[in-house]
Amino acid sequence: MLMTSAQLKPVTYKKTLPSMSLTLPPSPFRDALNDMTPNIAAELLRYGKMRPDVISLAQGEGENVTSPVIQQAAMKALQEGKTFYAPALGLPELRQEIANYTARIYGHDIPTSRIFVTSSGTNAINLCLHSILNEDDDIIAVTPIWKNLIGICEVVNANIIEVGMTLKENRWSLDLDQLFDAVTPKTKAIMIVTPNNPTGWVMSEYEIKTVMEFARARGLWVVADEIYSRCQYGKTHAPSFLDVAEPDDLLYIINSFSKSWAMTGWRLGWVIGPQIAEDKIRDLALYQNMGPPAFTQYGGIAALRYGEEFITQQLNLWTHNRDLITKKLSTMTRITLPEIDATFYAFFKIDGVDDSMHYAREMIDEVGLSLAPGSSFGSQCEGFLRLCFGVSTPRLEDALSRLERMCG
Amino acid sequence: MLMTSAQLKPVTYKKTLPSMSLTLPPSPFRDALNDMTPNIAAELLRYGKMRPDVISLAQGEGENVTSPVIQQAAMKALQEGKTFYAPALGLPELRQEIANYTARIYGHDIPTSRIFVTSSGTNAINLCLHSILNEDDDIIAVTPIWKNLIGICEVVNANIIEVGMTLKENRWSLDLDQLFDAVTPKTKAIMIVTPNNPTGWVMSEYEIKTVMEFARARGLWVVADEIYSRCQYGKTHAPSFLDVAEPDDLLYIINSFSKSWAMTGWRLGWVIGPQIAEDKIRDLALYQNMGPPAFTQYGGIAALRYGEEFITQQLNLWTHNRDLITKKLSTMTRITLPEIDATFYAFFKIDGVDDSMHYAREMIDEVGLSLAPGSSFGSQCEGFLRLCFGVSTPRLEDALSRLERMCG
Repeated sequence: MLMTSAQLKPVTYKKTLPSMSLTLPPSPFRDALNDMTPNIAAELLRYGKMRPDVISLAQGEGENVTSPVIQQAAMKALQEGKTFYAPALGLPELRQEIANYTARIYGHDIPTSRIFVTSSGTNAINLCLHSILNEDDDIIAVTPIWKNLIGICEVVNANIIEVGMTLKENRWSLDLDQLFDAVTPKTKAIMIVTPNNPTGWVMSEYEIKTVMEFARARGLWVVADEIYSRCQYGKTHAPSFLDVAEPDDLLYIINSFSKSWAMTGWRLGWVIGPQIAEDKIRDLALYQNMGPPAFTQYGGIAALRYGEEFITQQLNLWTHNRDLITKKLSTMTRITLPEIDATFYAFFKIDGVDDSMHYAREMIDEVGLSLAPGSSFGSQCEGFLRLCFGVSTPRLEDALSRLERMCG
Repeated sequence: MLMTSAQLKPVTYKKTLPSMSLTLPPSPFRDALNDMTPNIAAELLRYGKMRPDVISLAQGEGENVTSPVIQQAAMKALQEGKTFYAPALGLPELRQEIANYTARIYGHDIPTSRIFVTSSGTNAINLCLHSILNEDDDIIAVTPIWKNLIGICEVVNANIIEVGMTLKENRWSLDLDQLFDAVTPKTKAIMIVTPNNPTGWVMSEYEIKTVMEFARARGLWVVADEIYSRCQYGKTHAPSFLDVAEPDDLLYIINSFSKSWAMTGWRLGWVIGPQIAEDKIRDLALYQNMGPPAFTQYGGIAALRYGEEFITQQLNLWTHNRDLITKKLSTMTRITLPEIDATFYAFFKIDGVDDSMHYAREMIDEVGLSLAPGSSFGSQCEGFLRLCFGVSTPRLEDALSRLERMCG
């Protein structure tokens, strides 16, 4: 039986205290979990996935399975018996391959002792934030931002200070003065996703340099999520904090195999951090899951070694799809789509929509299209929806027809 | 170049505050990480593994690679393109297979909504403890216990109250009165590993029932690590908290594919918990690593479906090896080995050893044998060493010769 909208939980983003709270039994769970904002986007994603007739472009993945050369490397490792415990920070061979890749693509030599393999990009951010945030520390998050990164901060009970980008001449823009003004004595870190999910915004070299110099002078951490680094249109890679970093900077750069190599189901990522972080991240990883599986890491090695052609193919598809959706949406009068400089997301505003969660749910029910609600990405994103166009062109065309039926 | 003992970090278990602390710069890391006790056993393990001539029986794994039927299931899943995001609490098929297994082996019907697939047994405990412990909560840990479980509590800044088992007539014994007396108003949970790593102790049905009733009456959580459940000698499985549990009990039962199915390198485990925990564990998993890889979970399904013969084979080997080591150690006058009722560990005391860390390091240097130091398992375990005998008999015999050279 299908769930109906009415059976879903109520869409309350901020919790309100029950008026009869004194009569409620105490929760057996950790306070931070009871206080967390609900992940309504994840709930809606599950709702959409329960229905076979729905096209789900709500999640950040395409339709390509992982390339055979990567699959085969993992299978070979399995057959060779790589089924034993691996080091918590990753196989030395994979750490070395990441160092080679970083030198080849970005032109920077990073010692393997500063490279930490993790159980996904999400896990990389989790470990980094867990290594630095105390309860009640402030962390600045440049928004729009993926809700899970906020969730990680909530788990450690840190205060999230949202610095919101704004639209200028149909491009998203970060006001550096506003960012720096948000820093207080309680601020421990600045978290930035560039290229940005969901907006496709790319931080410029000047902005990166300025933020790094500011953070260095103030003793702040920078947590830079660069998992879409290889998805800037017309570029080999986006500008990176690596380009301005000193080895001892309090800087974590997050990366992942999920997007560029179509390895979402592998749960494999990495961090480049300062040398002093190696022991801390190792301890945390040891007590969290002792690192990713052994044989999957050989898939990671193959991806870095043989994956460039696959990345090019993906970018060709995404470029084609980006042009297609840009053209199509320009004909839909209620929709405003800012320029997409990177990523495989279209993040657009629909005129007249003031509850994107409710609207996204209606869209599932009415035309069978599941998109991510803007409100989950930041307070300035109400009225927006995120569509992942990293899928086959026919599927995207079908989705756009449904979108047009809904709000064309 | 090999590291020598002198290059290892000093073996200070409890941190002493530096007398000049005011002049030190503030640490950029989270306070809890700076305050954590060092994981000297893990350091020593890495030290032993760096030397190819060393037999390492310091870690809890054997020499058997994962069985081909399990490997093939994962490879088939890979080839079929199971390389996409999977649900954070595991594939529905695996949750169902765990339910089937629990009914078949333990005789209990658990709905899949109470079964949470995790990225290893360690990860299962991490998620469970993170779901319940606030900073400064007390958690009772029955010791001896694996250091990583203490590390998880340290990460969340909880207070670990150690309740130590003692030796009675050459068997380890838990004093229930002492356990219950340790509970204070700040106590949130009791953590017990049964069958126990490193002692091979097995909690009796009576003890399990009594602890569960006590916890239920006092509103305490029980976190029962039962990952060695299938390793009790002469039994299909050890007594389980499942046998006395009510569906709504504040009880987490931890399990893992690592030991019984020789899948240490797969990082796959599961939890059975109360229904109210499903959303909490899902949120935590979502923000930690979004669950284990998709295709490895098909290996888990095959393990549960076709793995009983492999478990029997492993138990036959372990039984043979247990008898061998018991006989051999009884001839070594400095060594006292308590009865081993379960697991593949021999946890023995060496007369005259009062610094097991130092002694374990000397053993690596002098005879090329790496064992786990007792002191890392609890304050009453100084002078003990843990040896994993889940390896081939010839390898065990070689190790025992080396042990005899060291302390025979």
